[in-house]
Amino acid sequence: MRIAIDAMGGDHAPKEIIEGVELSRDENPDVIYDLFGLTDEIKKYLKNDQNIEITQADEVIEMGEEPVRAIRKKKQSSLVLAAQSVKDGKNDAFFSAGNTGAILAAGLFVVGRIKEIDRPALTTTLPIVTPKEGMSDKFVMLDVGANADSKALNLYQFAFMGKYYATNVLKIDNPRIGLLNNGTEADKGDMLHKEVHELLAANKDINFIGNVEARELLNGAADVVVTDGFTGNAALKGIEGTALSTLNLIKSSIMDGGMKSKMGALMLKDVFKSIASKMDYSKYGGAMFLGLKAPVIKAHGASKQETVKNTLAQIKTIIDSKMITEMVDYVDSHKAELDAIKESVKKG
Amino acid sequence: MRIAIDAMGGDHAPKEIIEGVELSRDENPDVIYDLFGLTDEIKKYLKNDQNIEITQADEVIEMGEEPVRAIRKKKQSSLVLAAQSVKDGKNDAFFSAGNTGAILAAGLFVVGRIKEIDRPALTTTLPIVTPKEGMSDKFVMLDVGANADSKALNLYQFAFMGKYYATNVLKIDNPRIGLLNNGTEADKGDMLHKEVHELLAANKDINFIGNVEARELLNGAADVVVTDGFTGNAALKGIEGTALSTLNLIKSSIMDGGMKSKMGALMLKDVFKSIASKMDYSKYGGAMFLGLKAPVIKAHGASKQETVKNTLAQIKTIIDSKMITEMVDYVDSHKAELDAIKESVKKG
Repeated sequence: MRIAIDAMGGDHAPKEIIEGVELSRDENPDVIYDLFGLTDEIKKYLKNDQNIEITQADEVIEMGEEPVRAIRKKKQSSLVLAAQSVKDGKNDAFFSAGNTGAILAAGLFVVGRIKEIDRPALTTTLPIVTPKEGMSDKFVMLDVGANADSKALNLYQFAFMGKYYATNVLKIDNPRIGLLNNGTEADKGDMLHKEVHELLAANKDINFIGNVEARELLNGAADVVVTDGFTGNAALKGIEGTALSTLNLIKSSIMDGGMKSKMGALMLKDVFKSIASKMDYSKYGGAMFLGLKAPVIKAHGASKQETVKNTLAQIKTIIDSKMITEMVDYVDSHKAELDAIKESVKKG
Repeated sequence: MRIAIDAMGGDHAPKEIIEGVELSRDENPDVIYDLFGLTDEIKKYLKNDQNIEITQADEVIEMGEEPVRAIRKKKQSSLVLAAQSVKDGKNDAFFSAGNTGAILAAGLFVVGRIKEIDRPALTTTLPIVTPKEGMSDKFVMLDVGANADSKALNLYQFAFMGKYYATNVLKIDNPRIGLLNNGTEADKGDMLHKEVHELLAANKDINFIGNVEARELLNGAADVVVTDGFTGNAALKGIEGTALSTLNLIKSSIMDGGMKSKMGALMLKDVFKSIASKMDYSKYGGAMFLGLKAPVIKAHGASKQETVKNTLAQIKTIIDSKMITEMVDYVDSHKAELDAIKESVKKG
């Protein structure tokens, strides 16, 4: 198994990327890590090159650059060359913590999209905080930011892919599919979400449970949360930010609370550790652009070595499961259904 | 001062509404509470009628009813009659924990909107978790759910009203106005938010700091967060839900953690209490429809007596401050500016 890594992408690149790769390598002797970037820079931080290859890339795409222009202009960038190596079959998956838009553009124009899926969706897995007996302790949410402007057809396809992901990766039987909306009643939402609700409610092949609200997501409102990329991004960032802020508030309140509260905190050390590991999303790893022909995974720009390591573990699972290859076949075998919806939406 | 109360609106009405009113009355001897609803029902729960009036309303608007149809059909409902009493000048503000859409519709069609403001915005105040020295410890966010579909002009007007609210109610000098978006760079967002960014950036009268992300809201990213009602609703509910889930997770982890963690929790009792009071949004009270000619305030449908009491305290402050009357004058004095923007948006 081989993973193509954009060593230059991210706020703390290449240092934290390389350190994360070394942590992952120490645990996975069967993976080859192909690092793309400025060789001299990479060598500065690399301690042990076992199972690590370096592919020289002369250019770097910066965080602020306009994505499509950047990948067209900087063909020798670490991001484009890493994506190209996956397209060429040299590597099995592409990882970057760089410019999200540029990763998406490289996914679309270099790796390529699955023909029947019009737009890829940035897909993430989140924990259910207090899962009920027999329920999954995770759910999948898509799109959380690949597309700012979406059409009903896109969200229909997200539901289709989300069902596949929940069934085959999270191993949830007949996953409950919910539409993120501003109320649970069927008539809620803006024009886009009303139209999506109709499309999903008419589809007998999915277990559509109707609208869900952002307030109930961490309580397990649905196994697959379908949303447009603009709203999904706001909801996800609201959740992440609040989890982090609450943890910080606990820390600062304890520090301000005198000796008694410090002793109490010491006694609760294990409890706090388990809460932090559940709620600190920065440790969770990456999100995948679902709808492309190969695994393309992005991590937060702010990722440090631990997140890089966790994301690489996630990528290994995805490659092992062969889920993308199998999803391409699955989509192919549902071509008639997807084409029929496309026609019906066109006719309005 | 007189407050019109829809005694029949909310999941726990009339019981919790009436109990909340009595709690508020016990602390505010100068307020008259005018309860609208089924007199017999109200009398069942009312312990002491000092400073409390009852106005009989024969009908009740239910939570699931289509809003505009409901307020047109049920003219004798507690919700419509309470709104009418404010329109008639008999009461100073209108409170309900009932059907949000029906409260908005009654606000628009009974109380009436400020002429220059095309759509009211549901406006809420949220805490900044760890405010920096000299900074406000609160920020205002609008629209969090009055409008599912919005135009750029609506969001421009929300910024205008938000500035007024932050300056005059939160007492923030030259408040920092941010646009909720899917990234901080100026070119981020869907078509709507790109257009709003341009309008706000061109306005020299406001302190526009650009785009803000949902992740940074509780860290004080802006004093006024401008958003469309669909996205704002998802972000707000994501924040509320995560805060509640984290608090629940702490509780259940402590209960599962054995004697040591229970003792630790006892020592941290005060710390947890202060965190809960900061993060439990259900205690915060209501949200206001800004852009109407009188204060119209809604509380969560799930509100219990404490939330009702807190919301009534908030309403008292709003009436005391005369902010709505003064805002009507303020908008009036800026008619030329608001008209010019309307014209420029029309021309595209």
